[in-house]
Amino acid sequence: MKIKTGDCVLLLSSDNKTFLVDIKDGKIFSTHLGTLKLGDAIGKGYGEVIQTQLGKRFFLLDPTLEDRMMKARRLTQIIYPKDAALILLKTGILSGYRVIECGVGSGVLTMALSNAVFPDGRIYSYDRREDFLDNAKRNVTEAGFGELVEFKLRDVNDGFDETDVDVVILDLPSPWEGVSPAARSIRGGGRIASLSPTFNQVEKMVESLTNEGFINLESLEILIRKFLVRSGKTRPFERMVSHTGFLTFGRKAIV
Amino acid sequence: MKIKTGDCVLLLSSDNKTFLVDIKDGKIFSTHLGTLKLGDAIGKGYGEVIQTQLGKRFFLLDPTLEDRMMKARRLTQIIYPKDAALILLKTGILSGYRVIECGVGSGVLTMALSNAVFPDGRIYSYDRREDFLDNAKRNVTEAGFGELVEFKLRDVNDGFDETDVDVVILDLPSPWEGVSPAARSIRGGGRIASLSPTFNQVEKMVESLTNEGFINLESLEILIRKFLVRSGKTRPFERMVSHTGFLTFGRKAIV
Amino acid sequence: MKIKTGDCVLLLSSDNKTFLVDIKDGKIFSTHLGTLKLGDAIGKGYGEVIQTQLGKRFFLLDPTLEDRMMKARRLTQIIYPKDAALILLKTGILSGYRVIECGVGSGVLTMALSNAVFPDGRIYSYDRREDFLDNAKRNVTEAGFGELVEFKLRDVNDGFDETDVDVVILDLPSPWEGVSPAARSIRGGGRIASLSPTFNQVEKMVESLTNEGFINLESLEILIRKFLVRSGKTRPFERMVSHTGFLTFGRKAIV
Amino acid sequence: MKIKTGDCVLLLSSDNKTFLVDIKDGKIFSTHLGTLKLGDAIGKGYGEVIQTQLGKRFFLLDPTLEDRMMKARRLTQIIYPKDAALILLKTGILSGYRVIECGVGSGVLTMALSNAVFPDGRIYSYDRREDFLDNAKRNVTEAGFGELVEFKLRDVNDGFDETDVDVVILDLPSPWEGVSPAARSIRGGGRIASLSPTFNQVEKMVESLTNEGFINLESLEILIRKFLVRSGKTRPFERMVSHTGFLTFGRKAIV
Repeated sequence: MKIKTGDCVLLLSSDNKTFLVDIKDGKIFSTHLGTLKLGDAIGKGYGEVIQTQLGKRFFLLDPTLEDRMMKARRLTQIIYPKDAALILLKTGILSGYRVIECGVGSGVLTMALSNAVFPDGRIYSYDRREDFLDNAKRNVTEAGFGELVEFKLRDVNDGFDETDVDVVILDLPSPWEGVSPAARSIRGGGRIASLSPTFNQVEKMVESLTNEGFINLESLEILIRKFLVRSGKTRPFERMVSHTGFLTFGRKAIV
Repeated sequence: MKIKTGDCVLLLSSDNKTFLVDIKDGKIFSTHLGTLKLGDAIGKGYGEVIQTQLGKRFFLLDPTLEDRMMKARRLTQIIYPKDAALILLKTGILSGYRVIECGVGSGVLTMALSNAVFPDGRIYSYDRREDFLDNAKRNVTEAGFGELVEFKLRDVNDGFDETDVDVVILDLPSPWEGVSPAARSIRGGGRIASLSPTFNQVEKMVESLTNEGFINLESLEILIRKFLVRSGKTRPFERMVSHTGFLTFGRKAIV
Repeated sequence: MKIKTGDCVLLLSSDNKTFLVDIKDGKIFSTHLGTLKLGDAIGKGYGEVIQTQLGKRFFLLDPTLEDRMMKARRLTQIIYPKDAALILLKTGILSGYRVIECGVGSGVLTMALSNAVFPDGRIYSYDRREDFLDNAKRNVTEAGFGELVEFKLRDVNDGFDETDVDVVILDLPSPWEGVSPAARSIRGGGRIASLSPTFNQVEKMVESLTNEGFINLESLEILIRKFLVRSGKTRPFERMVSHTGFLTFGRKAIV
Repeated sequence: MKIKTGDCVLLLSSDNKTFLVDIKDGKIFSTHLGTLKLGDAIGKGYGEVIQTQLGKRFFLLDPTLEDRMMKARRLTQIIYPKDAALILLKTGILSGYRVIECGVGSGVLTMALSNAVFPDGRIYSYDRREDFLDNAKRNVTEAGFGELVEFKLRDVNDGFDETDVDVVILDLPSPWEGVSPAARSIRGGGRIASLSPTFNQVEKMVESLTNEGFINLESLEILIRKFLVRSGKTRPFERMVSHTGFLTFGRKAIV
C-alpha cells in the first residue's frame, strides 16, 4: 500500500519524536531536525524513510488509534489512551453496540468508542459546549469515524434521547448528574462508566449509582510505568504520570 | 431481549461473586448462597434476578468480553484484561486487520483480538502444544469468535505462513525467538508486541527488536489500583496484584 | 558477644521465616521444621546456627528495631515500619527531643520514637484505653526502651500536659481532635504528623491543621515494592501491600 | 530558644518554597518574592516571621535532618530521604553502632547515619574521590555531625580497616566489589545494605551476597505518592518521582 496525497501519516524521528501530518505535494514541514518535503512521501510505503535537508531520517508510519488520540486538537484535558482502553474492555463494548457518551471533550474517547462499535454501531455524543462539539466532530471525522457518531448539544440535566443503549459513559465534572438520565437510557445489564480526577467525585458518583440501583460497582485507577531498557542497565524511568483520573464502573439492574 | 436455553449468562451474587453458566431447563447450579434452578432464567431479561432456594438473589447479566476472559478454562497463566486492553490500543488493531499471535495459551488474548478485528479480519494463532490449542479453540468458539481464528500447531522457530500482516503478538518464554519470523511476516509500519514476566526477558527482547530494525520501542507495565468507596471512608484496597508482566511494543521499519 | 540466658533472639529458618524468642536453658521451641532446644544457643554468637531434632538449621540473629516492631504483641492494627521510618525522618526527631504520641496502639511506633530520642529525650504516650497502654508498655519495655516513655491514660479531647515539645504524632480515628491540643503543646517550628487510612480523614485533618495555623503541610503515602531476584529471571513479586495509611505532616507557626 | 548569629535557618515562603541560610546581621538574601535582611531573624523564635521589602512573609524554621539532606551541596546524585529512612530502619542502626559506608557521595546518607548512631557510635565513610570526601565532610560538619565520622580516601577493592562493625552500606556503581570486604568487616548477625539504579546491578549484588553467605536477603523499592488535599477536591498529584533506586538488604551469617 503506497502513500498518496491526502493520507494522514505519522512521522517518527530518530530521537523518537512523532508528528501527525497530511501528505501533500509541495508542502514543507519543519522539525527540530530540519525541514521535510512531505511530497517525498508519495509513492513510498509505510515503514520507509524520508529525509530532511540536513539528511536526518524520518520514518513514515500509519497512525494507530492511540497516535490519533494523542495528536487530536485539544480544547480540554483529554482522556489518556490507557484509561480509554480499559473503559472499552470493562464496559464490554462490541461491534454493533449503541453507546451514549456525555461530556465529549475533544472527542478523543469518541474515536476509541467509534472504532469499537464499527461498522454497525452508533455513538451518541452529548456536550453542552458548542465549541467542544465542533472540535470533537472535526477530530473524529479526520480519524475516519464521522459516520458512526451523532453529536448533540445538550446539558446532561436535560437527559438523553436514546433508550435501550448498551453503555453510557460520563466524563463530567459532576458525573452523578448523569446517573438518573443514564438509568433511563441503559438496557438491563448494560454498563455505565465515569471518569473523575478527585476522590470526592468518585465517592459521590458511587453513592448515586448505588441509589439508582446500579450493581457490580468498581472504582480503580490505572498506572503505567515505563522502563528504560538498555543491555545491562535496565531501570524504570525516573518520572511518571501518577494521576490522570479514577474510573468507576457499574451495570444496570432491573428491579 | 429475553434469555433463552443455551444462552451464556453471568450470575452476580449480592456479595459480588460471579459465575458464568449456560442456561438450560432442569439444570441445577450450586453456589455459596444456595442452589439455583437455571431454567428460572428463561424468559427473563438481562439485569433481572433469580433466587436460590434460600431466597438469595442472583442478577442475570450478559457477560462482557472481560467476563469471558476471566472465566475461560485455563491450562496456562492467562493474560490479564488490563494488559490485553493496552495491547489492543498500542498495536492499533482495527476491524479488518490480520494478526498473528504466537503462544496462544488459553486463548484469552485470542478472544480480545478476534473482537477487535471483527467482522472481516483474521487471527492466526500459533502454539506448539496441541492441548493448549484445543483448549483455546474451545474457549474462543464458546465466546462466539471461532470463525475469525485459524489455529496452527507450530513451534515459533519454524516461522509463520502469513506475510504482510498488520500485527504480531508474541507471548512466549523466549519471545526473541519470534522476532525474525515476525519481521518477515509484518508489513511496513506494522506493530509487534510481547509480554514477559522478567526484566531479563524484556532486555533480551529489546535487543532482538533493535537488531531486526524495529523502531519506536517502548517497554512498560500496567498497575491497577482498586478503591473501597464508602461515603466518608474511602480508601485504596489493602492488597493488590503488583505484577502480571511487562509489555514491549515496536513498529516495523523498511530499510 | 555471646548469647546468654534471657537474651531476645531472632530465629531465621532456611525458608526465611522468623521467630522472636527469649533464650532459656531447657526451653523447647516448636517450628514448622521441627523443635529447637533454645538452650543450644547459649554461648553461641550472632550469625551462628542451631538445629532442630530433624537437622534443620536456624540462624541466631540479634533482632533489629524492625524485627521487634513486627513481632510486638498486637491489640491493634500496627504502624508499618516503612511508615514509622518516614515519620521519624519527616518530623526530624533527634536525640534528646521531647515527643507526644497520642493513640499509642500496640506501642510499635513508640519503640521507634524512643530509639530516635535516645538517650536523653522523652516520649509522652497518651491513649484512652488502659488495655492498649498496658500492652504497649510491655512491648516497649521488652524492647529496652521503658525508661524513656511516660504512658498516660487520657482522651485526646482532654489535652496534653506538656508544653514546648518538639513533635506531636496523632494516630487516632479522628486526628483533627488532636490538632488544637497539639497546637498548644508544640514549640514554634515543631512538627506534627498523623496517620489515617481514608482520604476523608486526610482531608479533614488538613482543614484542621490549616485552621490552627500549621504550615508546610504535606500528605503522602509510601508504597514498597519487593522483587524476586534470581539470576536471569528477576521480577517484582506478584502481590503487594497497596495501602497501610496516609501520612500528613506540618510545622507549627507562631503568628 | 531565640535565633542568633550563625544559626542555620530554613526559610519557608508563603508558596511553600524553602531556603537554607546562615543568619548574619547585615546579610541580604534574595528570593523570588523580594529580598530579606537576615539580621531581622536575630532574637526571633522558630515559627515566627520576617518579611521581604515587598511585605512577603517568610517563616523561620529549624531545619530537620531531611531539610539538611535535601539542601546539601551536591557533587553527585544524592540518596533520597525516603530511601535513607528505610535503610536506617532495615539495618537496625542504633545509638552506639559502628557503621561503614562506602561511596560517600555528597555525604547525605552520612548525616542520617551519624544522627542514628549519636552520641557514642562511629561512621567510617570511604570514597575513592577526594573531591567527594571534601564536599561530604563539609556538608556533614555543617549539619553538626563532624565528630562522629571518619572519612577515608580508599577504593573499595582495597578493603576496609575496621572489623566487627554492625552495618556496612554500599553505594557504589559495582556494589558487589564491596561484598567480600564487607563480609570480613561485619560482625555475625550484622547487616549490609546497597543501593543501585538498575535491575542488573540488583541481580549481580544478590548473587554476590548469596555467594558470600549473607542471609535474609531482600530487594525492594520505595515509591512516595503525594496528594493535593483541598476540601471537596482531593487527588494525587499528577506527576511523581517513579524511580530513585533499588535497595538490597542482608545479614551476616557465621558458617
